[in-house]
Amino acid sequence: MTKKIAVLPGDGIGTEIVEQAVKVLKALGEDFEYEYADVGGVAYANHGHPLPPETLALAKEADAVLFGAVGDFKYDTLPRALRPEQAILGLRKNLNLFANLRPAVCYPELVSASTLRPEVVSGLDLVIVRELTGDVYFGTPRGRREAPDGPFKGAEEGFDTMRYSRPEVERIAHVGFRTAMQRRKHLTCVDKSNVLETSQLWREVVTEVSKQYPEVKLDYLYVDNAAMQLVRAPTELDVVLTGNLFGDILSDEAAMLTGSIGMLASASLNEKGTGLFEPSHGSAPDIAGKNIANPIATVESAAMMIRYAFHMDEQADRIEAAIRKVLSDGIRTGDIWSEGCEKVSCSGMGDAIRAA
Amino acid sequence: MTKKIAVLPGDGIGTEIVEQAVKVLKALGEDFEYEYADVGGVAYANHGHPLPPETLALAKEADAVLFGAVGDFKYDTLPRALRPEQAILGLRKNLNLFANLRPAVCYPELVSASTLRPEVVSGLDLVIVRELTGDVYFGTPRGRREAPDGPFKGAEEGFDTMRYSRPEVERIAHVGFRTAMQRRKHLTCVDKSNVLETSQLWREVVTEVSKQYPEVKLDYLYVDNAAMQLVRAPTELDVVLTGNLFGDILSDEAAMLTGSIGMLASASLNEKGTGLFEPSHGSAPDIAGKNIANPIATVESAAMMIRYAFHMDEQADRIEAAIRKVLSDGIRTGDIWSEGCEKVSCSGMGDAIRAA
Ligand SMILES: CC(C)[C@H](C(=O)O)[C@@H](O)C(=O)O
Ligand SMILES: CC(C)[C@H](C(=O)O)[C@@H](O)C(=O)O
Repeated sequence: MTKKIAVLPGDGIGTEIVEQAVKVLKALGEDFEYEYADVGGVAYANHGHPLPPETLALAKEADAVLFGAVGDFKYDTLPRALRPEQAILGLRKNLNLFANLRPAVCYPELVSASTLRPEVVSGLDLVIVRELTGDVYFGTPRGRREAPDGPFKGAEEGFDTMRYSRPEVERIAHVGFRTAMQRRKHLTCVDKSNVLETSQLWREVVTEVSKQYPEVKLDYLYVDNAAMQLVRAPTELDVVLTGNLFGDILSDEAAMLTGSIGMLASASLNEKGTGLFEPSHGSAPDIAGKNIANPIATVESAAMMIRYAFHMDEQADRIEAAIRKVLSDGIRTGDIWSEGCEKVSCSGMGDAIRAA
Repeated sequence: MTKKIAVLPGDGIGTEIVEQAVKVLKALGEDFEYEYADVGGVAYANHGHPLPPETLALAKEADAVLFGAVGDFKYDTLPRALRPEQAILGLRKNLNLFANLRPAVCYPELVSASTLRPEVVSGLDLVIVRELTGDVYFGTPRGRREAPDGPFKGAEEGFDTMRYSRPEVERIAHVGFRTAMQRRKHLTCVDKSNVLETSQLWREVVTEVSKQYPEVKLDYLYVDNAAMQLVRAPTELDVVLTGNLFGDILSDEAAMLTGSIGMLASASLNEKGTGLFEPSHGSAPDIAGKNIANPIATVESAAMMIRYAFHMDEQADRIEAAIRKVLSDGIRTGDIWSEGCEKVSCSGMGDAIRAA
């Protein structure tokens, strides 16, 4: 059966990197249908909204969404509701993409690109399982008001609500433990339960759910300590299970540790296991249109897409093997280039992976 | 006039490290009075509460508080309201310690202790200015309830309120800009204003206050990006101004980058500029009582205390010079020891600094 892929390149380098991923997907010779739509700044420019109704409708009916990146300096002065990032938040909420998987892997060929010592990052292979539709990101009430109480009563204040309910934590905990079962069977629950009520419920529920996964070793870190452990000994971590806000911070920190941020993909999944697949990096407007961006994270996102949403493990393995071959052949885009390697453009990298 | 110092050693290594700081302070020959009180787990054990009324009263009437560390495995099963950390939160709130300064400095002698490459951390010298009495740490309402609305309406949920008011942001922003004026005149405002209402007000107010400090270069980072920049190029940062929760995470990350976590002190100040001074590390119950802990962070906290609370800059400089001399003489506790250096105990380090 034909699989319909909603292709949302977005802004900045989005178009170039997504094109390489589509090129590689086409080379698989599978029955995929590609439908493109605007998202982010370009959608605002063309349709007056970063997530136009047609784009959302397409994303909903497609079997999976392949997403580039959004954001550009020129949209920074727009009111927040019209800014490119709102498209991401809108897609997550409307498609119910509650489970975000962000692997952070240090490719052996790229150890020298990390700012950490090689012995600290080599072998790094962890995945952050981040809840993506709850927490203070979406909690209501929120807004501006006069402080109703406290030492600054009457003053103007901004406020948000952090909240997590039991079933909400349960479903992401299951994703975390199932992910751990397919990996090194070690899950680290990250929260701030020494301070936050929300985190206390989080830890309680994760502990309960863990009983259904007796083989998985469960431990706990407060988020501040987790931010330290990522720097101190990141290879000791396997699966990190955390909420939306802490996951945002820790997944970026973890990605940067690897030195391979141009290589890291992410999957945002709903109950049905389909979802949205995008590189972990941003839209890099400063290098857009120059054909020098690194498309590997997006190609890897396409691999995650066909693995998670289409259950095409073999084809996903083929793409990942091709990426590894190209790397071991010494082919590099500028961001990961080092002495002795062959420097290629964005499309050159896409061609090399397709060929491999 | 006699300055009264409330000495609260706390748990774990607290007693040994605070003793070295007191030893060094006494060597200054100033008119200081020391009054000791229990705090944390030991206070719970002796008085049934981690912050007994007598301890709080002493802390309030003293000219400054010298704090060790709190926490021990044996108190982990207590209800949260009785756990050692509550003493810290209680002192912050009751003494109105809204401004937390956490320097992260990479001592040249200790570059090799960092997990980051020497060229990335050498010269690192930043300070996190963290708001300490607001945010989701103290915001009400908070608790457990049935979800009043949303997709999980009716389910058990944990919730907290993130909030900041205009005057609350103003006063910490002034601390941030004044700190920047005494340093490299560069302030980075860290928030999550692309998502949170609280952060939007935060950024707005910081931008307004910046007009009073035209010499300070102001830039902005989202907290996820800040977590990355700390790993990528931490020496580009000077003063990082942020809220309570983000400051908790980023200051621990920054401290760990330096490889010198046993060396880093922190100051928590109120409107009057007095406050509480403590090492940035924890109570390390695993090595308590062995006389092997590194007391330098606590000695440095004592230096910060007399500088900020007593305005004794010259004496503070003397202590800091003594620490530097001991380090350049190759004297090290076990945690920072490397080949060719002389290994000393906790009290041995205290003696060496006093002598210097
Ligand atoms: C763009 C922003 C809203 C988003 C987030 O905070 O989740 C991004 O940082 C991410 O991690 O995908
Ligand atoms: C112990 C805990 C409550 C505290 C905090 O979260 O502020 C600690 O992590 C710190 O940073 O001083």
